[in-house]
Amino acid sequence: MRRAVCPGSFDPVTNGHTDIIGRASRLVDELVVGVLVNKNKSSLFGLDERMDMLTDVTAEYGNVVVDSFDGLLVDYCTAHDIRTVIKGLRAVSDFDYELQMAQMNHGLAGVETLFMATNPLYSFLSSSLVKEIATYGGDVSAHVPESVRTRLTQRLSIPG
Amino acid sequence: MRRAVCPGSFDPVTNGHTDIIGRASRLVDELVVGVLVNKNKSSLFGLDERMDMLTDVTAEYGNVVVDSFDGLLVDYCTAHDIRTVIKGLRAVSDFDYELQMAQMNHGLAGVETLFMATNPLYSFLSSSLVKEIATYGGDVSAHVPESVRTRLTQRLSIPG
Amino acid sequence: MRRAVCPGSFDPVTNGHTDIIGRASRLVDELVVGVLVNKNKSSLFGLDERMDMLTDVTAEYGNVVVDSFDGLLVDYCTAHDIRTVIKGLRAVSDFDYELQMAQMNHGLAGVETLFMATNPLYSFLSSSLVKEIATYGGDVSAHVPESVRTRLTQRLSIPG
Amino acid sequence: MRRAVCPGSFDPVTNGHTDIIGRASRLVDELVVGVLVNKNKSSLFGLDERMDMLTDVTAEYGNVVVDSFDGLLVDYCTAHDIRTVIKGLRAVSDFDYELQMAQMNHGLAGVETLFMATNPLYSFLSSSLVKEIATYGGDVSAHVPESVRTRLTQRLSIPG
Amino acid sequence: MRRAVCPGSFDPVTNGHTDIIGRASRLVDELVVGVLVNKNKSSLFGLDERMDMLTDVTAEYGNVVVDSFDGLLVDYCTAHDIRTVIKGLRAVSDFDYELQMAQMNHGLAGVETLFMATNPLYSFLSSSLVKEIATYGGDVSAHVPESVRTRLTQRLSIPG
Amino acid sequence: MRRAVCPGSFDPVTNGHTDIIGRASRLVDELVVGVLVNKNKSSLFGLDERMDMLTDVTAEYGNVVVDSFDGLLVDYCTAHDIRTVIKGLRAVSDFDYELQMAQMNHGLAGVETLFMATNPLYSFLSSSLVKEIATYGGDVSAHVPESVRTRLTQRLSIPG
Repeated sequence: MRRAVCPGSFDPVTNGHTDIIGRASRLVDELVVGVLVNKNKSSLFGLDERMDMLTDVTAEYGNVVVDSFDGLLVDYCTAHDIRTVIKGLRAVSDFDYELQMAQMNHGLAGVETLFMATNPLYSFLSSSLVKEIATYGGDVSAHVPESVRTRLTQRLSIPG
Repeated sequence: MRRAVCPGSFDPVTNGHTDIIGRASRLVDELVVGVLVNKNKSSLFGLDERMDMLTDVTAEYGNVVVDSFDGLLVDYCTAHDIRTVIKGLRAVSDFDYELQMAQMNHGLAGVETLFMATNPLYSFLSSSLVKEIATYGGDVSAHVPESVRTRLTQRLSIPG
Repeated sequence: MRRAVCPGSFDPVTNGHTDIIGRASRLVDELVVGVLVNKNKSSLFGLDERMDMLTDVTAEYGNVVVDSFDGLLVDYCTAHDIRTVIKGLRAVSDFDYELQMAQMNHGLAGVETLFMATNPLYSFLSSSLVKEIATYGGDVSAHVPESVRTRLTQRLSIPG
Repeated sequence: MRRAVCPGSFDPVTNGHTDIIGRASRLVDELVVGVLVNKNKSSLFGLDERMDMLTDVTAEYGNVVVDSFDGLLVDYCTAHDIRTVIKGLRAVSDFDYELQMAQMNHGLAGVETLFMATNPLYSFLSSSLVKEIATYGGDVSAHVPESVRTRLTQRLSIPG
Repeated sequence: MRRAVCPGSFDPVTNGHTDIIGRASRLVDELVVGVLVNKNKSSLFGLDERMDMLTDVTAEYGNVVVDSFDGLLVDYCTAHDIRTVIKGLRAVSDFDYELQMAQMNHGLAGVETLFMATNPLYSFLSSSLVKEIATYGGDVSAHVPESVRTRLTQRLSIPG
Repeated sequence: MRRAVCPGSFDPVTNGHTDIIGRASRLVDELVVGVLVNKNKSSLFGLDERMDMLTDVTAEYGNVVVDSFDGLLVDYCTAHDIRTVIKGLRAVSDFDYELQMAQMNHGLAGVETLFMATNPLYSFLSSSLVKEIATYGGDVSAHVPESVRTRLTQRLSIPG
């Protein structure tokens, strides 16, 4: 595979995301991390902040590019000549929806989705859980990169 | 079975719905397609529009009647002397909720629910997915009847 | 629906089975309970015994006929001009396999499968569980009809 | 186990909840029923009302205490020196999320979560379902304690 | 809880088992590890060997007793006045069967089953997987205690 | 990705397999189809026959090589310097086991597993189902390539 896209909201990026991104980056020449601009869903961090954090924590991989997209993932793929999507799967509850999206994206534009099993260490991790823990002052240092933890603390005005 | 009801929001009706309606209509003397009036949930199409589209696409089946209901499905069934509900099941993620609703409806009013397996071709299809694709100008001609596609295009002001 | 078939091994019939058979019998003019002759799988009770027990416990429903079949269910349906299969679903673990079988049977011969939710009281019940309990002298009187309990006790030589 | 907490929103408490609370109370010296104060989620009953109803329906168990908590469950557990959470599991759809929460709570503070299987009679029951039925005047007397049914009727202004 | 039983085949005990046993032992006065004698299922290690390995690896917990049982778990519980079963849950595929067994055991003899979430590190681990890896000379040192690894190597005649 | 392996029993190869193989072959420079030699499981077709059929039906893809392996998949991967496994996922029931295998193979040897969603048209298809249908003379022409259908007919002595 030449290129693939790893899509998500990344609000914010967690250690579960970086694990998948790092492993996926070894399988392709270039991995695009595609940040979804979802106007109907409010986010804690703005698009620029989410992209900044991703650029920061993926700098160690030489072939990861951070970009954003608005609209359908298949349209982004078609416009950028990307034929492959890579996603992490944590648990069965992710599965049905993701399988349906994958089948639809294949039907709409021939785009293939490849699923990787999340590292079991991060199987319970999600951005919303991290935000919930951080909101109440819980310790998220095992769940997000240090630079993300700092931003979360600042944003949520938690004495750190 | 004399009569059965096939309930849903149908906002809008998809090819997955018409597949189930068509197959269910062959099992009963009369099939009522019951459109749920859910005041707490905003819909893209009004009740009249949703019923119009359904009437249009089910005209080919001689024994399908389109109606609407407000409140509990079991109350509608009791009021209209209908003992059987027919629903499509797409995937495991539908299953638990539907099984619980079926057990409750049976307990409340002796109403039976019969589940039919969705045609695998439409297993990834839902009204909300169709609306999402159409919103971004994606091609939904394989997912909804032509008359519905036209209305979606008009409603979402997409050059068609 | 004129006629439908409710297939299974029924080795032996449980209260979960009779619940589904009774409820299904009210939906059709005639319900055929089809006992599968599976030569590759050993059974505790022979085909005749399984059919006898079923005939006994379904006598109260006027429109239930007990029959047996060997080979593919769709071939039995085609040969007897039956267009509908009715099955109970207990839990998600039943679901995937049953959905796949239903889709295949529809594809092979246009036979529809209708799933009914098992009564929650019997959701943990299966013939193999009943046999395991009875083998160790456990009380199965809440799980099978009395006539079946008697036969189980005799067959397993348990002081009753 | 000396003490355990059984957390939830209890808006309102159902027969499914009291079944779990009653069974759990027999396993520990003291069972705390912890009512979640969720400021981001509107509730039908206020915190005081929810705690009143719980105090009422758990009075028969001598060792059940009703309390409330705000924030992370693990923080409440740590502050009150409780090492064990007890929760009911109804169905597979509950499972993934609950397993992930349990793994996270164990990782954050060494708090163990013990899951009990819901009584099959109540497997389809939830507070939101009860509220939906009651809103439309359906009979919930089999789903909630009598004192809760009375409050629901008053709150929803249903002729009872 | 005074006493509880943690049942299984333990052929052989894995790190996933010892994780659950260790955590469960902290919740009760005495934890019985009950090894199932299943005459219909061949095992790699005999009952005595399986019990020896368990006694060895649970020695560090002062309140764990290793025992065996033949027949129904509820009969063992009743005979030994044990009211509680503790089991680990790894994944959704375990869940349905275990929930059904728990509901049945509660119905048969009032025995409660408490489920604990497996440590995510061991979520992919099972005795059969360990045996498969060891059969082909794979390294199982991360999956079983050292004393078990030695026995596996000897039994399977693998140069170690 | 330079190379990947697509493992399985392929007893015999179905249209579901060839769909995954064809799509996977477009993602890599070379795709090895690895036929598992499982001495503990009897197969309808011998290893040579299974490999012959695969070679035949994958000839159209220029970069597919058919090979066999005995023992652990990770050992085969390590010996042949393959870092990636590609598998099809049909349904949730496949998922838990496959996720666990993927996590184990990653832990044992750093081998990544990529899952692709099966074409919905083949979601109910498996080699064992095809053999069952063919055994009873059912039509499998929609489920396997023509050359495989011919061999099945000959092997099962079905007039055809």
